[in-house]
Amino acid sequence: MHAISHYQSLISEHFDSLIFQKEPNNLYEPIRYILSLGGKRLRPVLTLMATEVFDSDCKKALAAATAVEVFHNFSLIHDDIMDDAPLRRGNETVHEKWNVNTGILSGDAMLILAYQHFEEYEPKIFRELAKLFSKTALEVCEGQQYDVDFETRDDVTIAEYLKMIEYKTAVLVGAAMKMGAIVAETSDENADCIYNFGLNLGIAFQLQDDYLDAFGNPETFGKQVGGDIIENKKTYLYLKAMEFASASQKEQLLHLFSIQPNDNSDKINSVKEIFNETGASQATQKAIADYTFKAFETLDKMHIHIDKKHLLKTFGENLMNRNV
Amino acid sequence: MHAISHYQSLISEHFDSLIFQKEPNNLYEPIRYILSLGGKRLRPVLTLMATEVFDSDCKKALAAATAVEVFHNFSLIHDDIMDDAPLRRGNETVHEKWNVNTGILSGDAMLILAYQHFEEYEPKIFRELAKLFSKTALEVCEGQQYDVDFETRDDVTIAEYLKMIEYKTAVLVGAAMKMGAIVAETSDENADCIYNFGLNLGIAFQLQDDYLDAFGNPETFGKQVGGDIIENKKTYLYLKAMEFASASQKEQLLHLFSIQPNDNSDKINSVKEIFNETGASQATQKAIADYTFKAFETLDKMHIHIDKKHLLKTFGENLMNRNV
Repeated sequence: MHAISHYQSLISEHFDSLIFQKEPNNLYEPIRYILSLGGKRLRPVLTLMATEVFDSDCKKALAAATAVEVFHNFSLIHDDIMDDAPLRRGNETVHEKWNVNTGILSGDAMLILAYQHFEEYEPKIFRELAKLFSKTALEVCEGQQYDVDFETRDDVTIAEYLKMIEYKTAVLVGAAMKMGAIVAETSDENADCIYNFGLNLGIAFQLQDDYLDAFGNPETFGKQVGGDIIENKKTYLYLKAMEFASASQKEQLLHLFSIQPNDNSDKINSVKEIFNETGASQATQKAIADYTFKAFETLDKMHIHIDKKHLLKTFGENLMNRNV
Repeated sequence: MHAISHYQSLISEHFDSLIFQKEPNNLYEPIRYILSLGGKRLRPVLTLMATEVFDSDCKKALAAATAVEVFHNFSLIHDDIMDDAPLRRGNETVHEKWNVNTGILSGDAMLILAYQHFEEYEPKIFRELAKLFSKTALEVCEGQQYDVDFETRDDVTIAEYLKMIEYKTAVLVGAAMKMGAIVAETSDENADCIYNFGLNLGIAFQLQDDYLDAFGNPETFGKQVGGDIIENKKTYLYLKAMEFASASQKEQLLHLFSIQPNDNSDKINSVKEIFNETGASQATQKAIADYTFKAFETLDKMHIHIDKKHLLKTFGENLMNRNV
């Protein structure tokens, strides 16, 4: 198996080879734009890696990996419209650079283009990939809808929140890896194991994102620390704090999550204090550890060489240490 | 082969059997809503009809027919957002009844749901259907983009306009019929013939729509006669008029297409007069007849029983006489 950077450059080369001069330009230019903004290409990297884990040539998985990345970018375009976000990876979002209609239509085209990448495979593999892809894509839509619904609800449970991040984020990580398994034509058991590996690691990663948004190092986190608190987002930390809070802590937290001061530093500090005092921080760290452990546990059930298991575990550890 | 109404009730029964109580409700309720608004279900009827033309049980094509209708309704939701349309089939559009974000996300889910209907077929048929579907869906997006682009262009050629209506409308008619051929497992030659039959009939139908929008009988046309003129739409009639117009007629038409009076009746009458005087009306009628003839010509090449050819021709004639 290779280093992440090897997979990244394979993907980047493949993307360059795809640069299409299709017409109409106003439909395809925004697609080329969002795909050119880069990012770590983590999902397609996982597809290639999974193919090698099951002893197949990772280049065979390039088309499936591309489908995953194109779909991910489709969802970014449409989510950015729904969130009215001005920036994506430090650049203007598609609907800002062009307009909302362009964002809708170019996004639609990307969802279709994603499916077309599977056409490289023969019927049996094609059907398996497309079926997993449809199931996953629909779950991502459902996750996004739950996320929207939660904004106006004050009775979201921990179980509902976990389902939301599972659907919105983690299923695509699981599916990206399982696609590698499908291309490698490994056993169904192995394919399901690597799906669960990716799924649980994805949940752990997202919970850690919630945690670092409040307690991360501003130098290394990449996003604005405290962003979720400023936006009154009901993250895992918040829901756990509400669960554990005394009556007065609850009242204080509800108040803090109802205000939008010009200077947020006092609000952020007060909320973080409640997260710590209620034990929400600790509970979140425990949940992260539990889901990471659950991911690593699935490795035991996989019928692959022990070296491959070590490599997957090392990758998981690096990901959770944010060294990827 | 059966009467249209037979296919329509098969589709309607199948739709009823699909009524899904999936969660989250805010994602699936708008989907149930748009699908409940009905319409003539012409595209799925064509899929079922094509399956019988090639001597297979039309019930085998119900899943493919459903995919076509679900896709069509997806495109209506997103197009209505882009056109800011308040009404669809006499009812509120999805983004009006809910909001734009709901329209975007429910539409996305429908595009994915459409693909899922193909999962009923075995791998080889599945791949053929999904591949044709992706190609067609992408062309529909391209057609929509051309339509948007044309609004702000004053140099649209007849060839470009024909390509736009082919992509935006006619390819889905051709694909709907070809899907029936794929399910029936007829020869590639037959499948391509019925695609071209649907494609050319679709173009003829859309050109007739342009014509009737100006010259149709208000009692029977269904839409507001003169609607395209009020909206200054560059239809086939307009483009032909501009091609044939004298300098003064051109000037007059450009003026009429730059104003938006409160009472449109004078504008409509003047534009229609120019359409007649320049010969644009006649040229449009000729184009409709040519594309209808081209559709019927493909029937000669099809290897099916003569009775089936007659039935397809009768259907085409009824469609063009707006008796369907």
